[in-house]
Amino acid sequence: MSGTARHDADASPRIDVGGCPLPHHDREVVTLAHGGGGALTRDLIERVFLPALGNPVLLRREDAGIVEIASEVARGGRLAVSTDCHVVQPLVFPGGSIGELAVHGTVNDLVMVGAAPRFLTAGFVIEEGLPITTLSGLVARMGAAASAAGVAVVAGDTKVVERGRGDGLAIVTTGIGIVPGGIALGAAGVRAGDVVIVSGTLGDHGMAVMSVRESLGFEADIVSDSAPLHELVAALLAACPATRMLRDPTRGGLAATLNEIATAAGVGIEIDEAAVPVRPVVAAACEMLGLDPLTVANEGKVVAVVPAESAADALAALRAHPLGRAAVRLGRIVPDHAGVVALATRVGGRRIVPLPIGADLPRIC
Amino acid sequence: MSGTARHDADASPRIDVGGCPLPHHDREVVTLAHGGGGALTRDLIERVFLPALGNPVLLRREDAGIVEIASEVARGGRLAVSTDCHVVQPLVFPGGSIGELAVHGTVNDLVMVGAAPRFLTAGFVIEEGLPITTLSGLVARMGAAASAAGVAVVAGDTKVVERGRGDGLAIVTTGIGIVPGGIALGAAGVRAGDVVIVSGTLGDHGMAVMSVRESLGFEADIVSDSAPLHELVAALLAACPATRMLRDPTRGGLAATLNEIATAAGVGIEIDEAAVPVRPVVAAACEMLGLDPLTVANEGKVVAVVPAESAADALAALRAHPLGRAAVRLGRIVPDHAGVVALATRVGGRRIVPLPIGADLPRIC
Repeated sequence: MSGTARHDADASPRIDVGGCPLPHHDREVVTLAHGGGGALTRDLIERVFLPALGNPVLLRREDAGIVEIASEVARGGRLAVSTDCHVVQPLVFPGGSIGELAVHGTVNDLVMVGAAPRFLTAGFVIEEGLPITTLSGLVARMGAAASAAGVAVVAGDTKVVERGRGDGLAIVTTGIGIVPGGIALGAAGVRAGDVVIVSGTLGDHGMAVMSVRESLGFEADIVSDSAPLHELVAALLAACPATRMLRDPTRGGLAATLNEIATAAGVGIEIDEAAVPVRPVVAAACEMLGLDPLTVANEGKVVAVVPAESAADALAALRAHPLGRAAVRLGRIVPDHAGVVALATRVGGRRIVPLPIGADLPRIC
Repeated sequence: MSGTARHDADASPRIDVGGCPLPHHDREVVTLAHGGGGALTRDLIERVFLPALGNPVLLRREDAGIVEIASEVARGGRLAVSTDCHVVQPLVFPGGSIGELAVHGTVNDLVMVGAAPRFLTAGFVIEEGLPITTLSGLVARMGAAASAAGVAVVAGDTKVVERGRGDGLAIVTTGIGIVPGGIALGAAGVRAGDVVIVSGTLGDHGMAVMSVRESLGFEADIVSDSAPLHELVAALLAACPATRMLRDPTRGGLAATLNEIATAAGVGIEIDEAAVPVRPVVAAACEMLGLDPLTVANEGKVVAVVPAESAADALAALRAHPLGRAAVRLGRIVPDHAGVVALATRVGGRRIVPLPIGADLPRIC
């Protein structure tokens, strides 16, 4: 496609200005007219979106993408649907960008209910003035992330808002996946005695974003964990088919996720402070900002509740995958204090881990 | 649910301040903390979203909604998926609001490919400071529109951005529908000689929004046509199973839609200016603002390409439905000037109808 090369700096058409070639489109920005549904919208679609996200369904450019799922549904599959708004600032951070996040956030929500992610839709709300090269770069990262996660972008939409009425770029993705017959994850299966596992260290994503935003000087050392969890969870479910439920501890961190599990299942949870895996540099950054790593967002971790007798198999399966090497047993489900999460502290005490009230870390995903 | 009544002004808890009861929550606004994924997010979900949009799938509150579509797929159905960002300003306008628009825009895109709309997801990007009563009102309108269109909201997400980084509220919806076996609408079926029909008057939505925004004084007379088209199109397809393709002339208006059809099908289109249905008050408003009604957005109209021999049946079916009473034959598909839309003017001339370049009317949907 001829438009493909036009946002590639190396291949860009140049204006010769007295022997000084200028890559003119590098200064091009998104305007309100790009959101008008006319020729400029088409130009943006052909130059930016289709090269990065195109596939046969999207290329048909109908009002809605049409996909075949008959064979999967015939084998007992059900449809899983999830949606996520992404408003992270800055748009690019150590270890990722809003592009990867928009894919991973939604893909992982599908994975948490046991679905195999298949399709994605993407809505872009762009603030007038965003450089088109910035947009192209972020959409390219999004396309690469979608390919890596095995999902096809089958529908999209773009709107442009005036300067000062948006914040660069918001991406809203919706994911569609197939839950295979026989899979029934959920709070209803959780029992006292079950074990609570997390697949790796906590707080990396939130502190990677914050370290840039607050110029903490940790930028080189703290990297977002943003990653698609479909393969990790497939390995877990293969090793431990009796897995009760899964949640990814994103906004609100582990504290919010454990409270959601306790409330949804009507059980108590006890975790060991000494078991909570936090990288020292992340712990140091949290301390500088007065944050609790338990409430900081993750974008590539899963919390699993598994039967006690399968916990060793589950941990082994997680640790055998690159995204689960630091998996640990966090604690257990208890029959007491239904709906409450308790932490056994390092010094032998106990404290309640409350559901966070609001946002210690706004605009983190 | 105890939270249900809390955003109902009549049933609101009041603070007694020296005999002067204040409905305290009427002053409540959305804060960044409401987007943090903690207790305040849960509160917003329980008070605002679930009362208006709740259904058994959403009420399970898993990371992704799970739905059954096996019986429809077994009968040859395929999945249609569409997404739309809604950034209209003002949020409420004559004949509708961003709430209805967020449902109708996405439902109608499904309908245009012949799908029966089934499920919707909703992402809300809220600017800090939006009054919660405003949000509740808009979400209630959205819920009513979803019920009327026969779609269940099966997943949702909310993010909050700082004051000055958004514009009140953006809603991104994704729709999922089932295309019944045997339905294959699309540009590939369009033939020279086919007839182009539109289901009613043009420009009502765009000018309803503009008349408020520009204080034209037409507010009482121009009303958005925002409506779900599933029943109208079902009637059309029943009467005219050979219908070639459908498009809804939203952003960019009829001009953009006809150009899209001409380009996609590789055909020419000729329409008669005298046949283009525009209400006199809409035409007057367009003239005041220097706009062409052909480029103004509609949110409750369908353009259909049908075989000439079925055109009378198609028109009769449309006119028998309340949303299609003003349906007319606009023109026809011609073998010449592929990709070009020509207008036969009232005075006997001919002019080309170009694809609009950009946005005469920003933030219209």
